[in-house]
Amino acid sequence: MTVSYPPKRLLYGPGPTQVEPRVYNSMTQPLVGHLDPCFLEVVDEVRQGLRRVFGTANEMTLAISGTGSAGMEAAICNFVEPGTRLGVFSAGYFAERIAEMGRRHGAEVVQWQKPWGKVFGDDEGAELIERDKPGTVAFVHAETSTGAMQPGKGICDAAHRAGALAIADVVTSLGANEIAADANGVDIAYSCTQKGLSCPPGLAPITISARAMERLDRRKDPVEVWYLDLKLLREYYDAPHKYHHTAPVSMFYALSEALRAIEAEGLEGRWRRHLEAHERFVAGVQAMGLQMHVAPGRRIPNLNTVRVPAGVDERQVRSRLLEEDGIEIAGGLGPLAGQIFRIGIMGPLATAEGVDHFLGAFGRALG
Amino acid sequence: MTVSYPPKRLLYGPGPTQVEPRVYNSMTQPLVGHLDPCFLEVVDEVRQGLRRVFGTANEMTLAISGTGSAGMEAAICNFVEPGTRLGVFSAGYFAERIAEMGRRHGAEVVQWQKPWGKVFGDDEGAELIERDKPGTVAFVHAETSTGAMQPGKGICDAAHRAGALAIADVVTSLGANEIAADANGVDIAYSCTQKGLSCPPGLAPITISARAMERLDRRKDPVEVWYLDLKLLREYYDAPHKYHHTAPVSMFYALSEALRAIEAEGLEGRWRRHLEAHERFVAGVQAMGLQMHVAPGRRIPNLNTVRVPAGVDERQVRSRLLEEDGIEIAGGLGPLAGQIFRIGIMGPLATAEGVDHFLGAFGRALG
Repeated sequence: MTVSYPPKRLLYGPGPTQVEPRVYNSMTQPLVGHLDPCFLEVVDEVRQGLRRVFGTANEMTLAISGTGSAGMEAAICNFVEPGTRLGVFSAGYFAERIAEMGRRHGAEVVQWQKPWGKVFGDDEGAELIERDKPGTVAFVHAETSTGAMQPGKGICDAAHRAGALAIADVVTSLGANEIAADANGVDIAYSCTQKGLSCPPGLAPITISARAMERLDRRKDPVEVWYLDLKLLREYYDAPHKYHHTAPVSMFYALSEALRAIEAEGLEGRWRRHLEAHERFVAGVQAMGLQMHVAPGRRIPNLNTVRVPAGVDERQVRSRLLEEDGIEIAGGLGPLAGQIFRIGIMGPLATAEGVDHFLGAFGRALG
Repeated sequence: MTVSYPPKRLLYGPGPTQVEPRVYNSMTQPLVGHLDPCFLEVVDEVRQGLRRVFGTANEMTLAISGTGSAGMEAAICNFVEPGTRLGVFSAGYFAERIAEMGRRHGAEVVQWQKPWGKVFGDDEGAELIERDKPGTVAFVHAETSTGAMQPGKGICDAAHRAGALAIADVVTSLGANEIAADANGVDIAYSCTQKGLSCPPGLAPITISARAMERLDRRKDPVEVWYLDLKLLREYYDAPHKYHHTAPVSMFYALSEALRAIEAEGLEGRWRRHLEAHERFVAGVQAMGLQMHVAPGRRIPNLNTVRVPAGVDERQVRSRLLEEDGIEIAGGLGPLAGQIFRIGIMGPLATAEGVDHFLGAFGRALG
């Protein structure tokens, strides 16, 4: 007997997103111990695959045993201390969350605000950093709440000139877009498994530059959060493999299989496929008379935000999609609640067929 | 193609432990969104099943999206604040970890020490609490590092007389032993999925009394750890189901299936089966001339600690078991490293056949 209730859904929301059957199957592989030599091989394969999708040579690249938000908190709690000035480029829900975590961990948070859906220019970002002199800077590469993509190189360069570390939230972009963490100068990037990596939720990939690890090694007080302490995780995942927690073995099987599928497709081909699906999607919704929320050139290819037309009840549209076509999408958060639809075109659904199938159902649901 | 490397192991260690095929299969069920009505039903089923294994009517019973150590940290960070006096009954590795987490979260930790493998008597526990007047008390019901079972009722009663909250670590006991959280007066109990519940690692069941939640509601400063903030988790898992993180959907499928298997067996029958397997195991190792580390009457039925005989290299024994029979067991931690074997007889392996198979292989490996 297996679980009988989950219906087949097409996950066109911001996440969790559609997963390939081979990834589900990988989780039926029997458990081995979390310090078994075979598991350590799986972990090493995952770490190597993550380096490729992050675009980094960072030794300290691993998966945190929690969901994407645990990755965010690991980035914050290890790299701010009570009194650290944390500068947050803020134009959406997830930037607000970073600021909130920063405050909880005792940082002096400087929140640079823009309307939700806008991005910061390079010069603008550099000026804010020079003016406020934060010790750590954070930005959201792909702001899932708005659909806007924030370029990172200008911010990272300015942060480094100011002696600050740069944290990038790549929760929605990793696996579907180029991250190029090293080339962009990102010190800490974190993500989740259930969006661009097409894997179930449960792990939070993270990568940390040598420069950031040196700063962590100089930190005097221990990180408050034992579970997310990167120094302890380094000793667990690297030799001497000192016991820390029990890694979620089945989730590592899933992530290793998802990364293999990505390798098999090829990273550049995968990014191109997402971009092409995005272009087809945008042309389709515009042909339906709908408007995108974010300006061209600033859009996240795999997470589209479409304005809710006047007079349309967006909750009713989402209910109809779920009930009639088994399709999940999401609505807006915060100031964008009721204003936008959030539509993920990712992984196995980022194809011409996937876009067309969605648009047909979307048109019917909009009435 | 599926993952090809994990060999078939028999997991006779402290965890992860052997999982039933039906639980693995449940993870192949397709993902639904984490706020999908169907997923909310799965979550409610899991919460109801957890109440039964914890022996509680606590409304606030749920699964944290991390492994057992995340459950421990949730218990600590929500119920100690900077300056809280945290009293820890300490006679093993996991009690030390509780104390360490308490210090990190700013508690004034009072660690009541005993040699590893001993337990505290009711009067003794009450005297320590009366003397040191902690605001929160923690004990480890089943100390996985030593094999000793610490009774909890006396501690909880004394804690309540002193106005303190009582935290119980039931990481190894839940699912294989009676917890009776309400009858014992436990305020906060947390566990993992990969030991007595016979499920893969990835979630941390936790239950919190109304009394403890009231204290949390009166707390002024927010909990430092956003990811483990029980007030936010309450709003996510209860109505209005306000978005917090993305729950690891596949792990919830697994846990719901594992709990169904436990229901199908019946709780009392399951506890009895583990006790009988334990008795058979103890008789067997004693017949081989080996000694148990913990005194009779104080032993954890599903996690046995056996003294390493003089002249035996325990690492070699463990390697031989792994290589020749695919059997995993664990060695000791801290002061017990090299001194004991830690042998879990749990879940599908807690049968006469499971014990006999292990003892045969163990005898050969000991040479």
